[in-house]
Amino acid sequence: MTETTPTYLPRDPAAHQVPSDSPANDYPMPINPLSPVDPPRELSAAEQARTILANASVGTLATLTDEGAPWASVVQYAVMADGTPVLSLSTLALHGRNLKADARASLAVAGPVPEGHDPGDSGRVSIAGRVEVPTGEELAAAERAYFDAVPMAEVYTEFGDFTLYVLRVETVRWVGGFGRMASTNADKYRAAEVDPTAVGADYAVRHMNEDHADALLLMARAFTGQTDATSAKALRADRYGMDLGLETPRGKTPARVAFTEAVSEPDGLRPAVVDLTKRARAQVADS
Amino acid sequence: MTETTPTYLPRDPAAHQVPSDSPANDYPMPINPLSPVDPPRELSAAEQARTILANASVGTLATLTDEGAPWASVVQYAVMADGTPVLSLSTLALHGRNLKADARASLAVAGPVPEGHDPGDSGRVSIAGRVEVPTGEELAAAERAYFDAVPMAEVYTEFGDFTLYVLRVETVRWVGGFGRMASTNADKYRAAEVDPTAVGADYAVRHMNEDHADALLLMARAFTGQTDATSAKALRADRYGMDLGLETPRGKTPARVAFTEAVSEPDGLRPAVVDLTKRARAQVADS
Repeated sequence: MTETTPTYLPRDPAAHQVPSDSPANDYPMPINPLSPVDPPRELSAAEQARTILANASVGTLATLTDEGAPWASVVQYAVMADGTPVLSLSTLALHGRNLKADARASLAVAGPVPEGHDPGDSGRVSIAGRVEVPTGEELAAAERAYFDAVPMAEVYTEFGDFTLYVLRVETVRWVGGFGRMASTNADKYRAAEVDPTAVGADYAVRHMNEDHADALLLMARAFTGQTDATSAKALRADRYGMDLGLETPRGKTPARVAFTEAVSEPDGLRPAVVDLTKRARAQVADS
Repeated sequence: MTETTPTYLPRDPAAHQVPSDSPANDYPMPINPLSPVDPPRELSAAEQARTILANASVGTLATLTDEGAPWASVVQYAVMADGTPVLSLSTLALHGRNLKADARASLAVAGPVPEGHDPGDSGRVSIAGRVEVPTGEELAAAERAYFDAVPMAEVYTEFGDFTLYVLRVETVRWVGGFGRMASTNADKYRAAEVDPTAVGADYAVRHMNEDHADALLLMARAFTGQTDATSAKALRADRYGMDLGLETPRGKTPARVAFTEAVSEPDGLRPAVVDLTKRARAQVADS
């Protein structure tokens, strides 16, 4: 599977075979900007996947029973520096016995769902590959990662019925929410960085909506080409920018504003948003 | 798979092959009560599974790819009155294409993890079976359940690429946390009731620990046979009673106290705990 560009599925209603009288036709579709804009930078599917896995430690593993049937079970996991998942599984549990017989496995992890948000419009990732028992330096690194992430790791790794595995990633699929989804390959996944701003992003979004709706509207008018926007709400923030939900006299539309530079520190969202607000004000003053 | 009695795995250290110098040996093991007690009633594996599924709407589905490999993906689901899960899946997504080719599927759902708790010591359930397309009255019931549980259900069911499925349950496995786990069969799962107190149970546990530690200790001494208990903490509450963590001069131990009658209303935990406290006080006064 190669990297595909994140796209809004509703742009292709034919693929969904939407009946003409469906309420789905009322779902906000992107509308064309009034003035041209460069496509703002977004997190890639590989960055989204790395970020979701790095910020959780509970996921669900799919393995194969001895009849070749799928078996889903909730597991704790860690990730190594290159995003490789680490698991410690008991042969007293079915997933542990399954993997001894067939090493193929898939791990799904859901990103956080901000309070009041629709879980269907939130990020999740599926990874598939094969588990292997690490050795030497990789074993030491896997143990360190697992001990950092999992509270009872000592117990899970010392019990004789537990095996420490790494999941060799082959396939990565990210779904960000309605119409936001993309696949990537193992090399891009391993090379991608975790978004350092992810932990504080929901707070930043709430803060902007509660206290700085005027700044959001300025940004929307200045940078998204939706120059007639009448209201703007922050939906998501990441190291490269913010996703907004806009109202215009021509309808509702999603839009995106990009920071001047990618944020590289966990607390870097605030100065990046302040900079964006200043640039938006300057642009309004110039026009 | 038949119903198995919930057991504490640490009771069988041999199964875990614990090294003699392992910190796992420090993990609290149940210690024998000083006076005999009747086994207090607990939720069955079937009741635990029904309760976890009824109180969430996001889980992870395991399906088979065209190569027979496992694929895990986060999904929204609903449950019908008999616990049968309902899914609406698109053939634009891999899980939807997988199920068109092979109907075998497994659904894993994690129960809520109270703040500050170890996710490894929290409830989760795995269900396996086959998906079918419901018809007639069952289709109507499945749609009603799905519309109630999933915010964007209208969209997911009207798009022509989505199929509404019911998952015919064949296998049910519940894990409650460290050493608490049991399997059950499909008939028992369908016949079991959802615990009506589940939504408020974590609040009740916090409230007892913050404001009524004295009452918990009275209960522990009166009803668990651990008559020398020096402190008691509520761990979990359900319609049949409470799980406690006790300290005694002989070591730490889990214990359980049962209510006089099973609670049948969502707000019935409070009177049941008040009754239990009164009975504990009366017993202390009598002795």
